[in-house]
Amino acid sequence: MTDPLPAPAGLLDALAAIVGEAHLVRDPGAMAPFLADWRGRFTGRARAVVLPFDTAEVAQVVAVCARARVPIVPQGGRTGLVLGSVPDAGGAAIVLSLRRLNRIRAVDAANRTMTVEAGCILADVQQAAFEAGMLFPLSLAAEGSCTIGGNLSTNAGGTAVLRYGNTRELCLGLEVVTADGRVWDGLRGLRKDNTGYALRELFIGAEGTLGVITAAVLKLFPQPKAALTALVALASPREALALLNLMQERCGAALTGYELMSDFCLRLVATHFPKLPRPFATHYPQYALVELSSLESEDHAAEMVETSVGAALDAGIALDAVLATSTSQALGLWQLREHIPLAQATAGKNIKHDISLPVSSIPAFIERTDAALQAAFPGCQVVCFGHLGDGNLHYNVAPPDGIGHDSFLSHQEGVNRIVHDSVASFHGSISAEHGIGALKREDLVRYKPPVELDMMRAIKAALDPLGIMNPGKIL
Amino acid sequence: MTDPLPAPAGLLDALAAIVGEAHLVRDPGAMAPFLADWRGRFTGRARAVVLPFDTAEVAQVVAVCARARVPIVPQGGRTGLVLGSVPDAGGAAIVLSLRRLNRIRAVDAANRTMTVEAGCILADVQQAAFEAGMLFPLSLAAEGSCTIGGNLSTNAGGTAVLRYGNTRELCLGLEVVTADGRVWDGLRGLRKDNTGYALRELFIGAEGTLGVITAAVLKLFPQPKAALTALVALASPREALALLNLMQERCGAALTGYELMSDFCLRLVATHFPKLPRPFATHYPQYALVELSSLESEDHAAEMVETSVGAALDAGIALDAVLATSTSQALGLWQLREHIPLAQATAGKNIKHDISLPVSSIPAFIERTDAALQAAFPGCQVVCFGHLGDGNLHYNVAPPDGIGHDSFLSHQEGVNRIVHDSVASFHGSISAEHGIGALKREDLVRYKPPVELDMMRAIKAALDPLGIMNPGKIL
Repeated sequence: MTDPLPAPAGLLDALAAIVGEAHLVRDPGAMAPFLADWRGRFTGRARAVVLPFDTAEVAQVVAVCARARVPIVPQGGRTGLVLGSVPDAGGAAIVLSLRRLNRIRAVDAANRTMTVEAGCILADVQQAAFEAGMLFPLSLAAEGSCTIGGNLSTNAGGTAVLRYGNTRELCLGLEVVTADGRVWDGLRGLRKDNTGYALRELFIGAEGTLGVITAAVLKLFPQPKAALTALVALASPREALALLNLMQERCGAALTGYELMSDFCLRLVATHFPKLPRPFATHYPQYALVELSSLESEDHAAEMVETSVGAALDAGIALDAVLATSTSQALGLWQLREHIPLAQATAGKNIKHDISLPVSSIPAFIERTDAALQAAFPGCQVVCFGHLGDGNLHYNVAPPDGIGHDSFLSHQEGVNRIVHDSVASFHGSISAEHGIGALKREDLVRYKPPVELDMMRAIKAALDPLGIMNPGKIL
Repeated sequence: MTDPLPAPAGLLDALAAIVGEAHLVRDPGAMAPFLADWRGRFTGRARAVVLPFDTAEVAQVVAVCARARVPIVPQGGRTGLVLGSVPDAGGAAIVLSLRRLNRIRAVDAANRTMTVEAGCILADVQQAAFEAGMLFPLSLAAEGSCTIGGNLSTNAGGTAVLRYGNTRELCLGLEVVTADGRVWDGLRGLRKDNTGYALRELFIGAEGTLGVITAAVLKLFPQPKAALTALVALASPREALALLNLMQERCGAALTGYELMSDFCLRLVATHFPKLPRPFATHYPQYALVELSSLESEDHAAEMVETSVGAALDAGIALDAVLATSTSQALGLWQLREHIPLAQATAGKNIKHDISLPVSSIPAFIERTDAALQAAFPGCQVVCFGHLGDGNLHYNVAPPDGIGHDSFLSHQEGVNRIVHDSVASFHGSISAEHGIGALKREDLVRYKPPVELDMMRAIKAALDPLGIMNPGKIL
């Protein structure tokens, strides 16, 4: 690793004076964990890593950097997948870690809200809600290390979007340090507020390019009394869509999970994790993992699952079904879903896509894109799974049998073009829940309408005129 | 009425060339219906009213006005309450009516979305969803004449926010004509899309000051199989809050309505609409109007109402309750709520507030604000009702008995100050669902943090650098 660029005279001492020398990391070796991409593809450089204690210190840090025209890379749990929270290779930036802003400031049970600081680990936020007798429903694989500030800055999705929405829908208010180092107190716990522009919404999903989220007011929900899980075998994605619509008609908001998995996904899991359950004695083309929750009772949840899945079997939509009759059985079914990415990683590198489509287009998208890929890369293997209820697929492409994973990666651009062109033809999104970061900037320019990019650039220039907030990300 | 300002040379002819002479209103008399505030408090002036046929014509109209630096006032159904959709008295503006953009472009049943043009009447949108076997849940008093474009531009609320959210939460995509006359096609029907800044959110609620919404993709929902309504008598707003929390814990998303009404409200309705039902033989201090919906069955809805309201009676939270056992009984209970504003209007003018608070603060807010008003204006009468589940109160102040309504209106500024200062002390909002328009601009400056106003002004300048989009509204 080369040394970072020298800092403008006095900058690091000024930062140390704000946060204390113990919370300014200047040593390149000690900085390393803050500079590396979570998936290990890239390591950036920085002048220092600064770890302020509270919002006031964040504001002072930003003000000092703004005066020196030094770029700032806000960082949460560093679990992002698009290189959004690590600095580039230039070495000019300061990494601003929010890790020490990790206080639950307040829980307002009767308002069903909690106020938390950006550096709170998601699992700790979930736990604090649970201890208050409520549910904070955001849930994703990285929840043990990602932070709520990162979740907000990337508008994270996860497995409960179908019922509760993206992180955006779970947030009522924000506290933000602006690019000139002022504190905006937008920590409102209001369900309705029509007083001007949607600044909260603008900072959510902006990946730290417009300012630094330092705290948020989050929505809480009643804890379900019961959740029942079923795995339903299906002939094709068309039947998966039909089952989804049937479940939504009958169960509405009680449908809290709906994940699609192809047989190829489950075979991969069975190969690499042979101890996991095999729910069916035979293979079916597709599976839907269905979760129904009830605030009333376990009996009520069971009745909903049985009547709706029963109706799907009767109607010929479903081929077979397994209902989990215990928590451990439900866990086993969810483990099948959660082990797909792990099985893939064990099998070797592949070309990943995090895409979304109108839910109604998913069967046609899969058919057409599979065919286009087979035409271009005969024998390539598509690992397609994801949050069908949200129209969000993880559509990953692995090499044909006998072709090395590393050599197949040389086709990444060609594979991406086929998949993303197909997404665009269905009016879908090339980044459903992972964001743009540094990784998908070129794709953004390729697929976004110019008028939209122009508006984004105008907003960036308006709120960060010096261009110091996470430069090189998104735009 | 004075004549409008002369238009820049050739402007009106250029507009007529775009939309056709029949759709350009130049005659001051014919213009009148487009210039008058719905509540009759104000009539503005304009150079002309232009009624384009489609998005392309809207874009051409905006481009022509931009070149001539002529202000544009976008207008939907003109039912707004804050003078947001009528021009000011200056006479320099063109009114851009979206009335002819009234096509339902598409219904995608399997995606649960519909694409509609901005000028569609809300009731027509509801009807189109119903005919497709689904529900578009936005519902408010003006639904027979307001347009979806206006609903989006003001982020309208209404009676179903508790379950389905504000208009913002019901929209997946937008088509917008920007302030320089370009068309942004953001008509995405996606549940997840993390590709850059939340422009959709920014245009929603911007009251036409950043661009013109011309079409939208709206979310649809399953139609409930049954909805049951109950009126619950309560000792005070504290018990209303306790009942709300009890209902939410037990019923979650099945709770589709929760309205608070004071006894004074119902006495007012009984005085002016003596034929409406009187559900209780005696008077109680407060009432909650509760609606529960079920996707399963009427029995299921009835069971939820009976067990939850029964539990509230057993726990001493509720004093008495009436359950509607027929659709006409339910309608009668809702009519009590809906006739409060009408009864008020019959009684005479009063000083209205559309405020929101953290739900948990509502009992204390009502106590403190009532007391402050009595101290300043002894005997004044507070008509307090609204969407308690959303923290949204319509908190209207009428004169003491014997004081004339018109003379009491001279105290409007003093009354507003007491109410809005109290709102601010509870971190509430001075405009929950009506917006800012021209009417609340001064209040916005008084109560918004300067850093927030600065960001709003920067965004306005970035997206509408000529300042031609609905000038004098919000900012």
